[in-house]
Amino acid sequence: MKILITGGAGFLGLRLARRILDRGAVAGPDGQPREVTRIVLADMANAPIEDPRVTSLVGDIADPAFVDAALGGDCASVFHLAAVVSGQAEADFDLGLRVNLDATRLLLEACRRLPRPPRLVFTSSVAVFGGALPTPVPETWILNPQNSYGTQKAIGELLVNDHSRKGFIDGRAVRLPTISVRPGRPNKAASSFASGIIREPLAGEIATCPVPPHTPIWLSSPRTAIAHLLQAHDAPAGAFGTGRSLNTPGLTVTAGEMVATLERVAGREVASRVRWEPDEAVAGIVMRWPDRLETVRAEAMGMRPEPDFESIVRAYLAGE
Amino acid sequence: MKILITGGAGFLGLRLARRILDRGAVAGPDGQPREVTRIVLADMANAPIEDPRVTSLVGDIADPAFVDAALGGDCASVFHLAAVVSGQAEADFDLGLRVNLDATRLLLEACRRLPRPPRLVFTSSVAVFGGALPTPVPETWILNPQNSYGTQKAIGELLVNDHSRKGFIDGRAVRLPTISVRPGRPNKAASSFASGIIREPLAGEIATCPVPPHTPIWLSSPRTAIAHLLQAHDAPAGAFGTGRSLNTPGLTVTAGEMVATLERVAGREVASRVRWEPDEAVAGIVMRWPDRLETVRAEAMGMRPEPDFESIVRAYLAGE
Repeated sequence: MKILITGGAGFLGLRLARRILDRGAVAGPDGQPREVTRIVLADMANAPIEDPRVTSLVGDIADPAFVDAALGGDCASVFHLAAVVSGQAEADFDLGLRVNLDATRLLLEACRRLPRPPRLVFTSSVAVFGGALPTPVPETWILNPQNSYGTQKAIGELLVNDHSRKGFIDGRAVRLPTISVRPGRPNKAASSFASGIIREPLAGEIATCPVPPHTPIWLSSPRTAIAHLLQAHDAPAGAFGTGRSLNTPGLTVTAGEMVATLERVAGREVASRVRWEPDEAVAGIVMRWPDRLETVRAEAMGMRPEPDFESIVRAYLAGE
Repeated sequence: MKILITGGAGFLGLRLARRILDRGAVAGPDGQPREVTRIVLADMANAPIEDPRVTSLVGDIADPAFVDAALGGDCASVFHLAAVVSGQAEADFDLGLRVNLDATRLLLEACRRLPRPPRLVFTSSVAVFGGALPTPVPETWILNPQNSYGTQKAIGELLVNDHSRKGFIDGRAVRLPTISVRPGRPNKAASSFASGIIREPLAGEIATCPVPPHTPIWLSSPRTAIAHLLQAHDAPAGAFGTGRSLNTPGLTVTAGEMVATLERVAGREVASRVRWEPDEAVAGIVMRWPDRLETVRAEAMGMRPEPDFESIVRAYLAGE
């Protein structure tokens, strides 16, 4: 079977592709494991994977012709990861709408034209929540995003739900926690610091933390996020109930605890490279996100969080 | 000041226009009462109102040029009532998206280009709720629509919220109850029967009720719905809290109680013209809607429901 991963040259897309190639199979349309014969990675940049099963397609995800070409007539599963991140969607309102809303709708329309409804995993975010939040946030809590990224993700969830209900796709909208530790460079996500305050000090560089030490963050490691995306893909539709949106398990850690963990693992000199410099724009977004979600349905699907943040830091150091 | 009412030739649009003309003033951008000098009624059909302050514009609300012409450069307030109703949006998925989603977005974009952000009242619906629902549905309950109309209205709410947060409009999304008694003919709304089972028997005609007698319905009279739209328009933005979506007060009445009320008001012969003929398609939509909503914020803005269904029937008979 063929799989399309949008945002396939990105950090999560590449890891997801490698994980699927390692596994060799995912759930087919009937729920039974099916051999993956082809993965199309669609992104703005070429995806650096050498594997005969992988095709890298470079183009604009908001271009209908590109979406059609990426999907082809035989796609059985889609992982829709392509997105403009939170800080950027807030700074450029039109770009956020174009990529996070218009492109998602294009993709859903193209899926609807396939001869057989594909499974589709849409990556949503805790940014769909906002306002005064209880801890944990119940699975029945209102979507009340307080930034444009969260608004666009919430709209994507609603579209995935309705297209699934109509039988156009078999969709799943997965609200991933903030992912830490991402390798590479900072990005324009408001949560970028949650990787930077670990990654940069370990690389001998200074990192600034834009939120106060007491700020709780709902986190997942890259490997756990990838595992949960695949579990959400493979779960039977019936496990989702009346809505296809799913909170996935994470860990609640404060920024201060993260740096304390770094000190425990890598020493005081490394941890001292973190500068606490509150940034109102970033803190204004991040401090409105929930710090813990109810994840009853995801746990029933077998999803588990990492045991603690130290495991996450050690996995990063081990190059996972 | 100038007001645009989309769907202005419809039942609610016309009544709203007449009510505004009677009042003569609504809250201006600064919250102070401002004289209404012009009302533009934009719809697919001509609006039958003779008043020098009223202009009727006929066109397609999903056409950008029509939206721009209707809004002009000087609109201070918009009531966005134009919509494809629930049964029709379910039957024609693409039409529902075009009118309920695309046209709403067009209108918001056009508002954003105005020199001053207009107040905008968007009519949403209880159809944004679905799945297992508590009674009453709390103001913090998840949007989990189980039909395409509800999905499109929920997306409209999210867009109105985000455009308000960004300062592009001063928006308010009002979740009106089912309106009964509507005059005129049945429409394609799944809730059309909630007027038909009163209106048709009173006109000497047979009416069929597609849901069982025990089905509870969350109702508002036309006059109360209009009053609540104006109260939502005039309320200060701060009264909405972190989200611009608002449940407005209604009455919970079962279909059986509605017909019993009709019998009490108009006699047994009239009430006997109601035939109970369950329709799965309609019941499948209506019986998933909530039968009572928490309306704390709306009540704080001074909104009140009708005292009972008998008052609604008597008001209809009095030609209100």
